[in-house]
Amino acid sequence: MKKLVKPLLAVLLFTAASASMAQQAPKPEQVIKWRQSVYQVLAWNNGRIKNNVEGTYNKDEVIRAANAIAALANSGLGALYPAGTETGKGWRETTVKPELFTETAKAGEAAKKFITESNELAKVAATGDAAAVKVQFGKLGQTCKGCHDDFRKKD
Amino acid sequence: MKKLVKPLLAVLLFTAASASMAQQAPKPEQVIKWRQSVYQVLAWNNGRIKNNVEGTYNKDEVIRAANAIAALANSGLGALYPAGTETGKGWRETTVKPELFTETAKAGEAAKKFITESNELAKVAATGDAAAVKVQFGKLGQTCKGCHDDFRKKD
Repeated sequence: MKKLVKPLLAVLLFTAASASMAQQAPKPEQVIKWRQSVYQVLAWNNGRIKNNVEGTYNKDEVIRAANAIAALANSGLGALYPAGTETGKGWRETTVKPELFTETAKAGEAAKKFITESNELAKVAATGDAAAVKVQFGKLGQTCKGCHDDFRKKD
Repeated sequence: MKKLVKPLLAVLLFTAASASMAQQAPKPEQVIKWRQSVYQVLAWNNGRIKNNVEGTYNKDEVIRAANAIAALANSGLGALYPAGTETGKGWRETTVKPELFTETAKAGEAAKKFITESNELAKVAATGDAAAVKVQFGKLGQTCKGCHDDFRKKD
């Protein structure tokens, strides 16, 4: 299992980074701005799903939001954490903890859980089963919270 | 044609807004922050594809980036332009032009083109045909430029 998982995580986390950075390394502040933006976009879509599972359920809106979350989860977000971005300011000072850059196996596991649960949510959303979406949305939320607890400073 | 297109645009642009705003209207500054973040995430993925078509082509990275752009294009971005966000500060002062809120048919057409070309890019990216991706990436870029010219103030 380890043999399989480790290279997979490496691909998920670092391929995109090395591929694009060989050509043109963006400035650390730009990279931090991009990653801060990703979390805002995730939060927007997360909030939309929350509104739907707690209120009137609109299948299409949930599908759109879940697909956006999944596509971002699958987009190779590890590329947004290159060396040199442990501290610094994007839109604002980064809230990343230094542990994200040192506890790479643990961070990789957290990323993997987020990807898995996001993809599952997109699948469940497509069925339009509001109750099942609520359950899966809770599971996704746990992966967000876990990663924030371990790797994100409190505001 | 008009009969079909107009309701479709209305759905694309406004369904998400009305569905979630009925429950819990986010503050204008939060909405502006979200939409500014969306464009940063689009720019990040756009830059990755650009690097690939101009340099070493990595099929998987292009697929990930194109899928992220398409999912965002399909996510109902019109919801991020509710009344009350014509001016204001998210991460920074909005650069949207007032015309976006008044020339709604034209804005809808621009949104539709962006969605169409994004979805096409995701399809082409999946084939791994770098030359075809380059062509389609150019078409997508035209839709970005067109909308920026008409509806975005210069920095």
